[in-house]
Amino acid sequence: MENVDSAIRKNRTANATITLTHNGSPIIHHDILVQQKNHQFLFGSNWGESTIALLNGELSGQEKEQAELRNEHFLNLFNQVTLPFYWARFEPQRGHPQTHRILNVARWYAEHGCTVKGHPLCWHTLTADWLLSMSNQEILQAQVERIQRDVFEFAGVIDQWDVINEAVIMPVFDRYENGITRLCKELGRINLIRRMFDTARATNPKATLLLNDFDVSPAYDILVEGCLQAGIQIDVIGIQSHMHQGYWGSERTLRVLERFERFNLPIHFTENTIVSGTLMPPEIIDLNDYQVQDWPTTPEGEKRQAQELVSHYKTLLAHPAVQAITWWDLSDGGWLNAPAGLLRRDQSCKPAYAELLKLVKGEWWYPPTHLTTDAIGQFTFSGFLGEYELSLEDRKILFPLDGKGEATILVDI
Amino acid sequence: MENVDSAIRKNRTANATITLTHNGSPIIHHDILVQQKNHQFLFGSNWGESTIALLNGELSGQEKEQAELRNEHFLNLFNQVTLPFYWARFEPQRGHPQTHRILNVARWYAEHGCTVKGHPLCWHTLTADWLLSMSNQEILQAQVERIQRDVFEFAGVIDQWDVINEAVIMPVFDRYENGITRLCKELGRINLIRRMFDTARATNPKATLLLNDFDVSPAYDILVEGCLQAGIQIDVIGIQSHMHQGYWGSERTLRVLERFERFNLPIHFTENTIVSGTLMPPEIIDLNDYQVQDWPTTPEGEKRQAQELVSHYKTLLAHPAVQAITWWDLSDGGWLNAPAGLLRRDQSCKPAYAELLKLVKGEWWYPPTHLTTDAIGQFTFSGFLGEYELSLEDRKILFPLDGKGEATILVDI
Repeated sequence: MENVDSAIRKNRTANATITLTHNGSPIIHHDILVQQKNHQFLFGSNWGESTIALLNGELSGQEKEQAELRNEHFLNLFNQVTLPFYWARFEPQRGHPQTHRILNVARWYAEHGCTVKGHPLCWHTLTADWLLSMSNQEILQAQVERIQRDVFEFAGVIDQWDVINEAVIMPVFDRYENGITRLCKELGRINLIRRMFDTARATNPKATLLLNDFDVSPAYDILVEGCLQAGIQIDVIGIQSHMHQGYWGSERTLRVLERFERFNLPIHFTENTIVSGTLMPPEIIDLNDYQVQDWPTTPEGEKRQAQELVSHYKTLLAHPAVQAITWWDLSDGGWLNAPAGLLRRDQSCKPAYAELLKLVKGEWWYPPTHLTTDAIGQFTFSGFLGEYELSLEDRKILFPLDGKGEATILVDI
Repeated sequence: MENVDSAIRKNRTANATITLTHNGSPIIHHDILVQQKNHQFLFGSNWGESTIALLNGELSGQEKEQAELRNEHFLNLFNQVTLPFYWARFEPQRGHPQTHRILNVARWYAEHGCTVKGHPLCWHTLTADWLLSMSNQEILQAQVERIQRDVFEFAGVIDQWDVINEAVIMPVFDRYENGITRLCKELGRINLIRRMFDTARATNPKATLLLNDFDVSPAYDILVEGCLQAGIQIDVIGIQSHMHQGYWGSERTLRVLERFERFNLPIHFTENTIVSGTLMPPEIIDLNDYQVQDWPTTPEGEKRQAQELVSHYKTLLAHPAVQAITWWDLSDGGWLNAPAGLLRRDQSCKPAYAELLKLVKGEWWYPPTHLTTDAIGQFTFSGFLGEYELSLEDRKILFPLDGKGEATILVDI
């Protein structure tokens, strides 16, 4: 782990030389307090249904307490959240979207310092079933209008979107009939992607737009290449890594990264799962086929999960292209009923939560530190990239550390 | 097979109404003889090393007789041949290509009515090992010049090329270091494909240019889509189907076709293999890993091969996009030492050869037929698309049947 740790420091920290002034005059030989307030790197997780209910005032009693506990654990660790825009659930009846309900949640996360991402704008799974009776032209129109409406109404709160989910499989998806597969089959993947990205971009030019996929075979990097060659502006490559069948290991992870780093685009690991119970059998191809009543977390599983999580996060942070890791799900019993959480069903913390917290707010975090400016008003420190607060007596000022390596910063207080 | 047979007739035959004239005047109530001379569909096979040696005067005695027998069987059945341009063998020493030797063979096939295809112009496997010491820029230059030289020198004899072979795997191929993988990794697949196609096109604007791959996963159809979206003119999609591990069956074949037919481009099945012996074990991923001393053809294997071959050819001929099927290899003991031949090692015919001949020159062939023109000089017949000869007493004239369905043709003799 020595190499990986030094690679993390190399790619994620700055050696800052700060000159502190007051109205342009250096503040010399003065005690100050410096502390990190946020990470540049996005450490995220996905929404919880209980959080959505809580923030819409739908919970009481123990349910409310549990949801509050979950939120507390969330905010202690994470600075990014992914919120659900599955069309089937977001707008089960055409013309009646859950905008208000999700906006309450998005605002709450934003007010608590989290970058909020919407997931996804276009996907064949969980798409609206009322598309099925439409012609392809009408489906395209409805899909475009859905993007225009949602990207517009959430702009400023949600400025990060998984625009298309799983385009590799989209036109050949054959588990059930749906309007988006039909549309993609007619348009082709690249034409559909272009239309969706163009629509989202025109609606919110400030948004960060992702292409997201679970397929990490050459099919996906060939698709990215095709999109870029066709002139589609993809801001971020999203890679899912649902490891219900076992941790990839750093070697496989690096092989995947190797195929995508050539595009010189940021990479987000958008959906990361490592279970703390029995592994899903390897012969399952579509994870959704694995339906179990009970899938318990186990002590030995939790120990393994914690070790693997540390290896996974370190592998990714050591790679300069990766800018975000989103855990999926925060608490046990979410997708597939899996023990995928960093929290158990009772919202108590597993070892994986503790280990990740030790990294994110420990090893990779610059704690409150007393320093003194020198004879020309300068002080130096090394810290992880992110937002910092400088306190001088009762005055506080924020400044960013946003470029790795040597940094020279002027702070006027 | 009833549906498939009627689909073949629908897609591959014309109902022709011919008006026969002499200097513009109808030739009425006259006996004529009509016979098919060639198929529009390309029924092909690959070169044999013995044929190359034979046509360059390098054989004698029994070897010569065997090679001549092989050629006889070839010409009785096929109208297309694929010739080898593997760079490592074609130009083992830089500046000393085997142009003369291969040109002798190409001309012989062309003179015997075969369409000749060169295979391949750019491939990571069997590429020249002297590329390895070069920079990527020098490799690109050498690869471009190789295409310019060979496409130019063979133009008029070889006007059909597998321009790129196996681009899906090309940049991630890791079995051994080679210059083309290195180049492809730097340029990306689409940029490399564009450069190779543009070079071949500029050198021989009449040539039919194929992209060819063994990968029939979505990765390949996504690559084709990316190339087309990037404006690369691909004339034909080439699909390999080396079925050493067992016949795909018509259902899988149709699923593959379904993914490629959407491009509205002709499809060639470029490398078709069904063995008449033990199947290669399913766990082998790279067929080249299966190295056996002895892999005999067996009576029961030959029976199965014949049945599967018939199903394979019928499935493909029933699909309107398919324009060529190339068998790989014609005789046993070629690639992988496999019993893949339609001929045994002694060049005797297996049942598969006999069955294919019954189709190509029997069920799908219009034999010499005596007909009589009517009171306005017309006669009608139904035949497979291709070239036909009309004989009237001692005069002969060729005419094409080149569009399916109803055809009205004027033949002036």
